[in-house]
Amino acid sequence: MDRDKRYISMAIQMAKETVGQTSPNPSVAAVVVKDNQVVGLGVHVKAGEPHAEVHALQMAGEKAEDAEIFVTLEPCSHYGSTPPCAKAVIEAGIRRVVIASNDPNPKVSGRGIEMMEQAGIEVRTNVMKEEADALNRSFFHFIQTKEPFIRLKSAMSLDGKIATSTGESQWITGEEARRDGHRYRHQSDAILVGINTVLADNPKLTTRLEGRGSHPIRIVLDTKLRIPPSAQLIQNQEAPTWIFTGKNVSQAEVDTFKPYPHVKIIPLNEEKVRIGELVSYLGEQKVTSVLVEGGGTIADAFVRAGKVNETVTYIAPKLIGGKDALTPVGGEGVKQLKQVEAFEILSTEQVGDDIKIISVKREE
Amino acid sequence: MDRDKRYISMAIQMAKETVGQTSPNPSVAAVVVKDNQVVGLGVHVKAGEPHAEVHALQMAGEKAEDAEIFVTLEPCSHYGSTPPCAKAVIEAGIRRVVIASNDPNPKVSGRGIEMMEQAGIEVRTNVMKEEADALNRSFFHFIQTKEPFIRLKSAMSLDGKIATSTGESQWITGEEARRDGHRYRHQSDAILVGINTVLADNPKLTTRLEGRGSHPIRIVLDTKLRIPPSAQLIQNQEAPTWIFTGKNVSQAEVDTFKPYPHVKIIPLNEEKVRIGELVSYLGEQKVTSVLVEGGGTIADAFVRAGKVNETVTYIAPKLIGGKDALTPVGGEGVKQLKQVEAFEILSTEQVGDDIKIISVKREE
Repeated sequence: MDRDKRYISMAIQMAKETVGQTSPNPSVAAVVVKDNQVVGLGVHVKAGEPHAEVHALQMAGEKAEDAEIFVTLEPCSHYGSTPPCAKAVIEAGIRRVVIASNDPNPKVSGRGIEMMEQAGIEVRTNVMKEEADALNRSFFHFIQTKEPFIRLKSAMSLDGKIATSTGESQWITGEEARRDGHRYRHQSDAILVGINTVLADNPKLTTRLEGRGSHPIRIVLDTKLRIPPSAQLIQNQEAPTWIFTGKNVSQAEVDTFKPYPHVKIIPLNEEKVRIGELVSYLGEQKVTSVLVEGGGTIADAFVRAGKVNETVTYIAPKLIGGKDALTPVGGEGVKQLKQVEAFEILSTEQVGDDIKIISVKREE
Repeated sequence: MDRDKRYISMAIQMAKETVGQTSPNPSVAAVVVKDNQVVGLGVHVKAGEPHAEVHALQMAGEKAEDAEIFVTLEPCSHYGSTPPCAKAVIEAGIRRVVIASNDPNPKVSGRGIEMMEQAGIEVRTNVMKEEADALNRSFFHFIQTKEPFIRLKSAMSLDGKIATSTGESQWITGEEARRDGHRYRHQSDAILVGINTVLADNPKLTTRLEGRGSHPIRIVLDTKLRIPPSAQLIQNQEAPTWIFTGKNVSQAEVDTFKPYPHVKIIPLNEEKVRIGELVSYLGEQKVTSVLVEGGGTIADAFVRAGKVNETVTYIAPKLIGGKDALTPVGGEGVKQLKQVEAFEILSTEQVGDDIKIISVKREE
């Protein structure tokens, strides 16, 4: 592996650890190297706080003069909540910059590079771009479409069942797969379920990770506002709960939830909750990523609206059978194979006794 | 890798190429090495023909004296259609024998080794045993249980569908996966489908491999003998067709198929075809392996009878949806999760755009 790749790879490893904590910003890391010694390291910790390059340059101090900086994402060129990083890089006296991913925003992509090149800095781009892009797939999607990145998570048997024909579903996959699945909650701005899942399982939908875990917004699609105030999503206040309803819900019904300040009732414009409208609304609210966790009717609505960007599927090596047993995507389904959207496999790995497959929507 | 492993690995590679052509015998290969030079090679080509060791010793000729032989399976100790290989090894003057798998027949396992050790030959066993056992998993099962090894093959979407809700199923997986699937026909003594699959798809069920392919017996489970004489399985005579029916089928109905000598009608003892009885019968007929290809009701019958030994599942990265869309294992299904048999993942690999998962029944 060449030297540039080695330091970019180190930065990618660092950035990986921050996935899920920087929203609506991307996960970024930077490494400053002088005379083949690492003299500065930095990651972006949280939105509103300094960017990765700033931390790394600060740590390097005077050693940044004539040094190289390796960054997972093109340094920004604009004044946001912090001054542009490209400027900080120039002012620190950096001699050479190596970049993995370009800025995903087509309006400013390349501008940071341009600023630095005009200041006489040598810039190399696209080093391990694919790996770095993968870190921020949901952020890139959000920047480019202004809609959240929708990830569909399922756990099923080798014959596609999420429950037996009598409805028994706990548990099909093993403990390791379930624990792995919780990591996606931590990495998402919101978790979404349908009202049927709430009525059947009364879930809390919080992140259960040892020692850490941010709590994403809990979203319920509930056309007729059937959720009972006794539900854990109402009683448990660890995270906001947003309930999307159809337009025919009365103010009196909405008022029932006034005692719960973490609960927001959001009536949409049509009788039924439309995925397109929902997704636009969430984008406006700066929700950059949503984890769709259940059930099959909700998954089907997202599939038929063409709004699933990534699938995370855990498969247990079991055969359950039953033509009436539930599958991960139910509802009406797509009628013709030629209308079915193609995904592509991103990775396959064994997690405990189970298999985990990640696929992403194929680019047109 | 040590030297013994290197030669055993070479033998396993050779034996792999003969999987499917040696039934009811196992696939076996042998390598004779003298002074670190390969001087003899052999595989067992076909039942009734010489065993691998005999070919390898013949090729080595006088060089076998004081040489080593590496074999994927313990040399046999009994007079079958050929004299015992252990004897041939001794008579050739072999000095050292390295073995991967032991003889699977508990009655004679170790006897070949004993014969050779008593003749003063050094014997090493269990070298790459797991890999070598995998070559002959179905043969070992057959020897130990006197029943065929049942492999269930499915092709489904990432949400467990084998067709859309309107019944469209061609094709969910890609061409490479479908071609890969055909290799399992070549490796099986029989292919099995239910009458509904015959009526819906009118398949020919022959092996379509370029340049080769043995044609396994085509088995139809058809309780009421509904198969029409116009079906490809009746009109096409490239392979035998065995039709299993319930007991209430008249001689007149059976006689309809007299003009087709490759067709055998086999009424079983009960009204409905019972998987247990079927599997015993097939074992008696020296059918060592069966590929179950469809449909969901048949798969369910095998699953609930506990008779599936291996699954081969192709998964296309597509979401089809539909609560009424068919899944690989239909029927009544297993009611409770604690009654579901556990399999274990043997391998996962990408085949074209799709994923292929192989799992085997977990040993008790």
